Amino acid sequence: MKRVYNFSAGPSMLPEWVLNRASEEMLDYKGSGMSVMEMSHRSKAFASIIENAETSLRKLMNIPESYSVLFLQGGASTQFAMVPMNFMCKYKSADYINTGSWSKKAMTEAKLFGNVNVIASSEDKKFSYIPENYTISKDIDYVHITGNNTIEGTRFTTLPDTGDVPLVADYSSSILSEEIDVTKFGLIYAGAQKNMGPAGLTVVIIRNDLLGKHFENTPSMLRYDVQAKGKSLYNTPPCYSIYIAGLVFEWLLQLGGVKAMEKINMEKAEILYSALEESKLFTSPVNKKDRSLMNIPFMAPTDELNKKFISEAEVMGLTTLGGHASVGGLRASIYNAMPIDGVKKLAEFIRKFEKENI
Amino acid sequence: MKRVYNFSAGPSMLPEWVLNRASEEMLDYKGSGMSVMEMSHRSKAFASIIENAETSLRKLMNIPESYSVLFLQGGASTQFAMVPMNFMCKYKSADYINTGSWSKKAMTEAKLFGNVNVIASSEDKKFSYIPENYTISKDIDYVHITGNNTIEGTRFTTLPDTGDVPLVADYSSSILSEEIDVTKFGLIYAGAQKNMGPAGLTVVIIRNDLLGKHFENTPSMLRYDVQAKGKSLYNTPPCYSIYIAGLVFEWLLQLGGVKAMEKINMEKAEILYSALEESKLFTSPVNKKDRSLMNIPFMAPTDELNKKFISEAEVMGLTTLGGHASVGGLRASIYNAMPIDGVKKLAEFIRKFEKENI
Ligand SMILES: Cc1ncc(COP(=O)(O)O)c(C=O)c1O
Ligand SMILES: Cc1ncc(COP(=O)(O)O)c(C=O)c1O
Ligand SMILES: [Mg+2]
Ligand SMILES: [Mg+2]
Ligand SMILES: [Mg+2]
Ligand SMILES: [Mg+2]
Repeated sequence: MKRVYNFSAGPSMLPEWVLNRASEEMLDYKGSGMSVMEMSHRSKAFASIIENAETSLRKLMNIPESYSVLFLQGGASTQFAMVPMNFMCKYKSADYINTGSWSKKAMTEAKLFGNVNVIASSEDKKFSYIPENYTISKDIDYVHITGNNTIEGTRFTTLPDTGDVPLVADYSSSILSEEIDVTKFGLIYAGAQKNMGPAGLTVVIIRNDLLGKHFENTPSMLRYDVQAKGKSLYNTPPCYSIYIAGLVFEWLLQLGGVKAMEKINMEKAEILYSALEESKLFTSPVNKKDRSLMNIPFMAPTDELNKKFISEAEVMGLTTLGGHASVGGLRASIYNAMPIDGVKKLAEFIRKFEKENI
Repeated sequence: MKRVYNFSAGPSMLPEWVLNRASEEMLDYKGSGMSVMEMSHRSKAFASIIENAETSLRKLMNIPESYSVLFLQGGASTQFAMVPMNFMCKYKSADYINTGSWSKKAMTEAKLFGNVNVIASSEDKKFSYIPENYTISKDIDYVHITGNNTIEGTRFTTLPDTGDVPLVADYSSSILSEEIDVTKFGLIYAGAQKNMGPAGLTVVIIRNDLLGKHFENTPSMLRYDVQAKGKSLYNTPPCYSIYIAGLVFEWLLQLGGVKAMEKINMEKAEILYSALEESKLFTSPVNKKDRSLMNIPFMAPTDELNKKFISEAEVMGLTTLGGHASVGGLRASIYNAMPIDGVKKLAEFIRKFEKENI
């Protein structure tokens, strides 16, 4: 068995410690005589799996009791609709900051339910920066941001000051990568498949006073209040993905939590960004101040060289380095589970490739 | 390692062959150097996983090209809403046959979007039978049935004749357990966690001419046409659950397909029903003609005896035999992956328990 360094934007690498545990426990979870996949979601064994996962996540992110933690299905794309369905009821209007493809998709869904004010956008410069000067509108239900832009490689380092208006954030590609202050948000959502576990699980963290404000004909499954009341067991949850996410949380706690992880992530990102800054062949399109720690787009001067880079890297065990289909070029996603050694190998390869191709 | 016979109504047993494969391939899927959990859903490796799963399911159920097969998230409970959101647009009215708790939940969600005609119900006799005399209404968008009633232990053996009106069926707890004629249906849906794989995957089989008839403000993720056009990759699908379901399909094909499985299931059910018929202690509440092959509710005369049965069975490695919280008593769910040996052991135990407690 030879493991590769997988730079996929998601689904993406998981800690080997987690995969080993999952493999060992596959046919018999802790003497239960069954796999976690086979367990009733109403069983005691599963109850402790989901409760432990929640407890660990609360610890990792310092989530107060005044927030509910939900383990849902449907991906972040379903949240694009659930947010307006549950929040856009009073003023039928919300502010969105447009920082890339995922912000735009979120806006498209919100428009089905009310008015979307694009109060700021970085589309003028191909989403290469995070806008800074904007005014929150009057009489709106919430403000939405994409905390980390997976495709464009930017991230918010300063949050908009929304006053009493709930701030909603899509942290799909950076949750648990650096410390954030949960109390600044009305709602945080994230698909699991980057920093938490397998695809098919979406984590929602919601301030309890925001529950129960949905449009009248919202289906039960899409109501945050129903999911919170059911403690994510209103129906059968994605049990196995919750189990794996729980293991990832355990791994992260052992490692020292988000603070320790953030330090490593800074180091990892620095290694790559330095290599790109030094480079005379590769360029990074992103405004330095707004750089993502997780997703690093870069490019050689020609499509041909990009392709060559991808295929030679593949041979070296450095995989999935193509940019998103919508932007092309190259992208290295270096989530929590990417070892620093993988990043060093990639930086070395960048230098080697440059020497050979300049 | 000691495996148990798990009679859970879902999530429930998976074939050991599948679990072994999953365990072996956990850190390195077919020399890719990564787990299926870590793979980009846009990768070639995953493309062949999802395509193979679809091809196998089409073979198993004899699904014509005029139907789309969708691998979705959200569970059958999300289908309770997606069906009316996508179908109830023309007449804003649909017929439902009420055969138990799950039918009722489906009706509750449909009422959010239009008129629900309960054209037949077996609630008068605690849902112990499948109604037979009813008339399909005029000017309706579809007719909905729950093909197998997981909690009450009944199943449809004769389908309603709906003429040109699409028949929609929830086959969550009996899909792949016996042959059905897909061409009789407009849409079939089923949560994976009983006969197909882990929770977190929902399979939808939809006749293509029914795509694109949704209400205008239906979120993209909840539109069958969007999911069909995206070939279940509109967003990140529940990749690992699809992989496991694909293995279950492979296992079933090797075993001889649904026809062969149906024969085994008949045999398994017969063993249990005979034991219950012979019994002077236990009773089965279900009308003989309408008995489920998958879920067999039964009961001793007192709650105390039911509890004693559950805990003594547990010691014998026969687990999760309690009835659903809403009805109490006992229930044995004997899905495809339950070996015939498990059913024989349970029948033996029923006889032994009776001798000791009568
Ligand atoms: C920031 C962000 N939001 C939303 C999504 C969509 O997530 P999902 O595929 O789980 O719907 C992604 C996927 O990559 C993402 O990166
Ligand atoms: C017949 C039937 N329909 C629907 C459901 C709900 O499924 P889910 O939990 O996937 O939403 C169940 C669950 O047991 C069921 O048995
Ligand atoms: Mg983006
Ligand atoms: Mg440069
Ligand atoms: Mg039922
Ligand atoms: Mg009897």
